[in-house]
Amino acid sequence: MKNIYVGLVGFGTIGTGVVKIIDENKDLIEKRLGCSLILKRICDLDITTDRGISLDKGILTTRVDDLLNDPEISIVIELIGGIEPAKSIILRAMEKGKHVVTANKALLAHHGPELIDSAFRNQVDIGFEGSVGGGIPIIRSIKEGLAANRIISILGILNGTANYILTKMTDGGGKFQEILREAQHNGFAEADPSLDIEGIDTAHKLAILVSLCYGTKVNFEAIYTEGISRITPLDIEYTKELGYRIKLLAISKGTDGEIEARVHPTLIPAGHLLSKVDGTFNAIFLTGDAVGSTLFYGRGAGKMPTASAVVGDIMEAARNIMRGITQRVPTFSYQTDALQAMKVKDINDISTRYYLRFSAQDQPGVLSKISGILGKYGISISSVIQKGRQVLGAVPIFMLTHEAKEANVRKALKEIDALPVTAGETMIIRIEDQFSLGE
Amino acid sequence: MKNIYVGLVGFGTIGTGVVKIIDENKDLIEKRLGCSLILKRICDLDITTDRGISLDKGILTTRVDDLLNDPEISIVIELIGGIEPAKSIILRAMEKGKHVVTANKALLAHHGPELIDSAFRNQVDIGFEGSVGGGIPIIRSIKEGLAANRIISILGILNGTANYILTKMTDGGGKFQEILREAQHNGFAEADPSLDIEGIDTAHKLAILVSLCYGTKVNFEAIYTEGISRITPLDIEYTKELGYRIKLLAISKGTDGEIEARVHPTLIPAGHLLSKVDGTFNAIFLTGDAVGSTLFYGRGAGKMPTASAVVGDIMEAARNIMRGITQRVPTFSYQTDALQAMKVKDINDISTRYYLRFSAQDQPGVLSKISGILGKYGISISSVIQKGRQVLGAVPIFMLTHEAKEANVRKALKEIDALPVTAGETMIIRIEDQFSLGE
Repeated sequence: MKNIYVGLVGFGTIGTGVVKIIDENKDLIEKRLGCSLILKRICDLDITTDRGISLDKGILTTRVDDLLNDPEISIVIELIGGIEPAKSIILRAMEKGKHVVTANKALLAHHGPELIDSAFRNQVDIGFEGSVGGGIPIIRSIKEGLAANRIISILGILNGTANYILTKMTDGGGKFQEILREAQHNGFAEADPSLDIEGIDTAHKLAILVSLCYGTKVNFEAIYTEGISRITPLDIEYTKELGYRIKLLAISKGTDGEIEARVHPTLIPAGHLLSKVDGTFNAIFLTGDAVGSTLFYGRGAGKMPTASAVVGDIMEAARNIMRGITQRVPTFSYQTDALQAMKVKDINDISTRYYLRFSAQDQPGVLSKISGILGKYGISISSVIQKGRQVLGAVPIFMLTHEAKEANVRKALKEIDALPVTAGETMIIRIEDQFSLGE
Repeated sequence: MKNIYVGLVGFGTIGTGVVKIIDENKDLIEKRLGCSLILKRICDLDITTDRGISLDKGILTTRVDDLLNDPEISIVIELIGGIEPAKSIILRAMEKGKHVVTANKALLAHHGPELIDSAFRNQVDIGFEGSVGGGIPIIRSIKEGLAANRIISILGILNGTANYILTKMTDGGGKFQEILREAQHNGFAEADPSLDIEGIDTAHKLAILVSLCYGTKVNFEAIYTEGISRITPLDIEYTKELGYRIKLLAISKGTDGEIEARVHPTLIPAGHLLSKVDGTFNAIFLTGDAVGSTLFYGRGAGKMPTASAVVGDIMEAARNIMRGITQRVPTFSYQTDALQAMKVKDINDISTRYYLRFSAQDQPGVLSKISGILGKYGISISSVIQKGRQVLGAVPIFMLTHEAKEANVRKALKEIDALPVTAGETMIIRIEDQFSLGE
């Protein structure tokens, strides 16, 4: 049986998972591939910590050149994360004709085009299934299984930490900061959680999905990104009462020549499958013109689920090596010469429904003033809840609007927040219950 | 741009969908493939009915040899269904070195090994993504995205008609026969619905999934198959009260050297994602040793969703033709020489929890007699509901058991049903709320 030699750079949590799968599922992998995967070198700055795996000591190295200069190694796995030195290592590996597997979403979101070009120029493959949705095979599904479809929309719960916090707030009613601290304590959130809770990690993943769905070199900076740290128990409670759940969603919709791409907390109907995606799970709700609505669900992060995706990619590279081919499927789903720039719609130009929570003084006429200003900007109200209860000296008023243009909503809220009868900034959460959620 | 010529056999609903996608998404397909798909011939016994698509008349033929003998045609799509003449056409196409795409689940379930062997011998590919779960890319996900995993279990809602009927019964409380008639009237059920409601169609699909997951030539006849026609509104109502939903599930679990493979109505917890899969939708809940729990959801049948899968397969064949390769991924996921026979566990040997509905005479001591017999066979009860209400002169008693062996349950029920104080056969529905449903 032919041996295919693999080098791993980055022996952290996921790297350890990869080694474990290649070892424990060796027979299964061979039966599926018809060849053996041999992990020849592992490179990490730390080669002394015990990862709970027995390895031939000679495998470990702190010098990445030991992998890159080894002509026998045909697949390099990059699992160090971040931009540098990951980027340089990947580019050097490709220049040496090695295939690359990575789960590095930040790198792909920021430098995707450069990596695609290098893979194409060097005629190697780069697999990145682990970069979005952990073990969920969403990238392969977009590139192959659903390749016949025009993608109408993608809605994704793509960050386990944010979803864990929102789930806990929904189930138990705690405050954001308290639950975040608890999540940090339990290892479900990083010491610096900003990438996760401010939506940046989700936006990285959305950038990758958008590129694959629409064949575009998306400009990451153009993705409107808003996190979940402003969500209060009051918002959770009243959205529940209104028949919704709050999720941090990555949203993209394709329209002629333009795309929407945004990340923000979103109200979705409590009956919808996406609202049942709880805890650290991820899901992608994708609608295609032929296939209609689909949902892909699974663990979006963690050692073994992400390693499952990484080893899947190694196996794909091995199949291609066995057949002597590369670039069977283009890296970003479209032929390199068919990739095109597409304008991402400005957030001010989107139209959607809104949940608004006003903080009003408890005096007559406030509702009339608020609704008057909304009306002036063409924003019509579909439902209102106002209860006597005071919160910090003000009375909350909850409102759902019909579809309105974001620019108008912003203008209206600016006026409303400046009224003497309102107290503090109005909370605004966009609603998704239109065509993109299917039947 | 290179042209790849395709021939279609079977110009029915799905065939029409395939022609529509190849026509309407031509530019998208070319941008993804880097080549053109040209539909050169369409063969059907009926070439006069208007399918609402404008076609060059010269394309249509009633002679399948016009496709099979055309050396320019490299991909043959079989969409006539059933065993013959589909099987002979596919085998002849493969012998002529043509790749095949089909959605024919009955053929694959009954003659899978023969088709695999022929594809391998002739070094061509056979795509069958459309045969399970309609547009859901589950087959590709098992063969590639999740290829690094040992599959621990699969639970599938794989038949839209059966799921539609159960959903309607759950939502509105009607009787099976009434809802079936309504479904037939609305086009959601066939005039002869037995394949769908008796679980046979689901079993065909399960046979395919089991083969892919475990690399085995599964014996279709060994799959225990039970349909939904015995489910009554009473079962629906009380399972709801007990916190469950009834779904027709395809279940497979891999244990050492043996597999479970069965199709039957199943109670699943109302909070589980699978219980939210309603109407004609399908879903596959798959657990792998590395990836953990995953769910794949979408339209399991119908013109465009199935055509989405078929065109995805045509595109895969085209990519392989462009690279001059075949059999990149083995047809049934394992290398042909690694496929092995595996014993399907006899239904009597499975252990699970059970929902039992007894029809008892309304007199003292009945419950004691029933529970006595259950106890004798080592079956312990986890909950009981007995309400005064009489149904056809008898009182229903609802019971959930702890895990028990099927053989013991059957013996116990045989004794119980023979008691003078019971009236009619006990209803038995298996419960799935163990490890296979994940967290």
